Amino acid sequence: MDYSDFFSERSKLLSSSFIRDILQAAKQPGVISLAGGLPDPDTFPIEKLMEIHNEVGKKKEVYQYDVTSGYRPLREELLKFLEKRGISASLDELVVTTGSQQGLFSLALLLLNRGDVAYVEHPTFVGALMPFKLFGAKSMDILNIEGIPIDENGMDVDVLEEKLRKVEEPPKFVYTIPTFQNPGGVVMSIDRRKKLLDLAHEYNFSIVEDDPYGEIRFTDDVPPSIKSMDNEGRVIYLGTFSKMLAPGFRVAFTVAPKEITEKIIVSKQAMDLHTATYGQAVIAEFMSRGFLEEHISFLREFYKKKRDALLNAMDIYFNKDVVKWVKPKGGLFTWIEVEGLNTMMISGRSAVEKYKVAIVPGAAFYLSKDEGLNMARVNYSYPSIDELHTGVKRLAYAIEMERSRGDNSSVMV
Amino acid sequence: MDYSDFFSERSKLLSSSFIRDILQAAKQPGVISLAGGLPDPDTFPIEKLMEIHNEVGKKKEVYQYDVTSGYRPLREELLKFLEKRGISASLDELVVTTGSQQGLFSLALLLLNRGDVAYVEHPTFVGALMPFKLFGAKSMDILNIEGIPIDENGMDVDVLEEKLRKVEEPPKFVYTIPTFQNPGGVVMSIDRRKKLLDLAHEYNFSIVEDDPYGEIRFTDDVPPSIKSMDNEGRVIYLGTFSKMLAPGFRVAFTVAPKEITEKIIVSKQAMDLHTATYGQAVIAEFMSRGFLEEHISFLREFYKKKRDALLNAMDIYFNKDVVKWVKPKGGLFTWIEVEGLNTMMISGRSAVEKYKVAIVPGAAFYLSKDEGLNMARVNYSYPSIDELHTGVKRLAYAIEMERSRGDNSSVMV
Repeated sequence: MDYSDFFSERSKLLSSSFIRDILQAAKQPGVISLAGGLPDPDTFPIEKLMEIHNEVGKKKEVYQYDVTSGYRPLREELLKFLEKRGISASLDELVVTTGSQQGLFSLALLLLNRGDVAYVEHPTFVGALMPFKLFGAKSMDILNIEGIPIDENGMDVDVLEEKLRKVEEPPKFVYTIPTFQNPGGVVMSIDRRKKLLDLAHEYNFSIVEDDPYGEIRFTDDVPPSIKSMDNEGRVIYLGTFSKMLAPGFRVAFTVAPKEITEKIIVSKQAMDLHTATYGQAVIAEFMSRGFLEEHISFLREFYKKKRDALLNAMDIYFNKDVVKWVKPKGGLFTWIEVEGLNTMMISGRSAVEKYKVAIVPGAAFYLSKDEGLNMARVNYSYPSIDELHTGVKRLAYAIEMERSRGDNSSVMV
Repeated sequence: MDYSDFFSERSKLLSSSFIRDILQAAKQPGVISLAGGLPDPDTFPIEKLMEIHNEVGKKKEVYQYDVTSGYRPLREELLKFLEKRGISASLDELVVTTGSQQGLFSLALLLLNRGDVAYVEHPTFVGALMPFKLFGAKSMDILNIEGIPIDENGMDVDVLEEKLRKVEEPPKFVYTIPTFQNPGGVVMSIDRRKKLLDLAHEYNFSIVEDDPYGEIRFTDDVPPSIKSMDNEGRVIYLGTFSKMLAPGFRVAFTVAPKEITEKIIVSKQAMDLHTATYGQAVIAEFMSRGFLEEHISFLREFYKKKRDALLNAMDIYFNKDVVKWVKPKGGLFTWIEVEGLNTMMISGRSAVEKYKVAIVPGAAFYLSKDEGLNMARVNYSYPSIDELHTGVKRLAYAIEMERSRGDNSSVMV
């Protein structure tokens, strides 16, 4: 049977990110990968989790169907967790999702008509672009996603304001990762957070605040979430256990006004009925024993050491006249700019094979492939401290070699 | 903030099934629920699962991100499992999904343009209708789903053939639960399976074969899956661990030609990235130790006793001039027909409160609410044997009382 005429128009908007190819290349033996965004498996609290499996695994309810909104004990723990972080929500404003990815997918499905525009930071998390395109795009050429630039203080809200003044229709929502942005590694300042909320009020749009990294902070000097400053239900907040505990459970959560939450729940009935009960029950027990806050403290110290090792290696090996980099206060990534070099030259498959180090080229995080050409994302959560040192050294060498070749016009991936 | 103008047109096609209200009513104390479709939690093999948690829980990889297609050891076990059941597939024709619900959602997204028609059995599984509507409906009024009646031998393929002859465009796919149909409890005969395949070839459509109950059989006299007879990649096969092990892991799988499987994987990247690793690893280990086949044998005996208890009680309490029922050879449900009674009278909230027994009225499983009015679905997997006995007794009483009232014109739910 030939299925080529069977696929929907919509399905043609789906495409696998080329980051996946890079991640494949990075798996080759001998390659140090600074490309991915995985937590270090050494952080998984196996001993405590085994204690919890031993308890939770005996309960019949963890193997049964559950309600779509999420496992009740987990949702109750989450309300307390959020309250401590300045986010007051009720049970009917909280829904457990299968990864934040599902939250993003559901929001795109619920909010975007074809032709509706979503604003995103530029660069941004690639995984968010796919659902936004899938449901919002007018056509293959008109994706209806627009980028607002970021700088060292996060999204440039002045550019946003200027844009809002000019357009006839404001976006349905502005998607932001304000805290330890992916890929930028930066934090949106408190003033900009406030201004974003003011603009949302003035122009009547919603803010989708994606906060996977907020807990992985190396300083107390980080502004509160935008959601915690929201008095009128403008902010839809996405949190996840993927970075603060373990991604393999696929347990995340969305906090939103009741009318949005109800719709997410109905869409989730159609999508997967509910998130796996077992993982939710393990996390609920992990939280109720007080393990999560302890674990977060541990992660902050653990990843701070890696961040320090990375910055130290960059300091040693990078030519400061050529390479500039963000000094992240948290999260998993830094973002580098290489003067006079298309970073595809040091990140394509042949470069990975040659230099034995992998990063993600900046262009991967932009809406058009001719932006961010001098930029790249560097991950420090997954490699060991030794690998960070050697990886940066190799990267510095690759930059030097490719810059000295001087021919950056034709780019091989 | 008022979100009422923010929701997409598409989102208005999403609605919660009224089965959910009945299931809520059925939770009241003292009510025996024959309404749900849950496995009996006493079947969950806790002891074996604890052994497996003790092994699997120590592996770091089960807490980490995994590939979208599914946990490799599980996929390898599944190929062997399917091979034993006459389905030969390769790794690139198999994808793990977050429940079969996700498989259905993904197929609807990938295959249905607005206005494309899907055929379903009539009555059918309500959870399938939501994604089909969401992506295929032309408007709120034109849902583009058409029903093919079933009888004691499953889908009436002669009616299907007649319909196909008349229509200009064949459907994109025909959705069927051929083995122990939900809600009908019937099995599609082997001749009809073959004819369905022939029609699919002749009119060039695909068959979506949903097989959640196939392993729960009480006789060897059950025809092989349609997929196992498919030589040209027409059948997209959905299997799940929800009934043959435990629904709480949300682990299911789709077997389809490579080009479909690839698209499902890309759509899944946008939907939830991957199914929870932990549950997949537990099931893989459960299978590799040979526990699954043992467990399936146990389930067949276990649920056969319940089926027998139900049929026995029906034999004792039902007036055979008034009530007819299917004698299921497997699965979780039987389907009854009550002469001269709208089954809403015995299944609405007030009836549940009065008679202390809950079933799902037939109308819930049809595309329009004026069909199946004399029918109802009765579950026997979840109630205990005593509850089955008492439940049927109460149901017989309810039928007698409501029929004798004679006024079935106004139906209160």
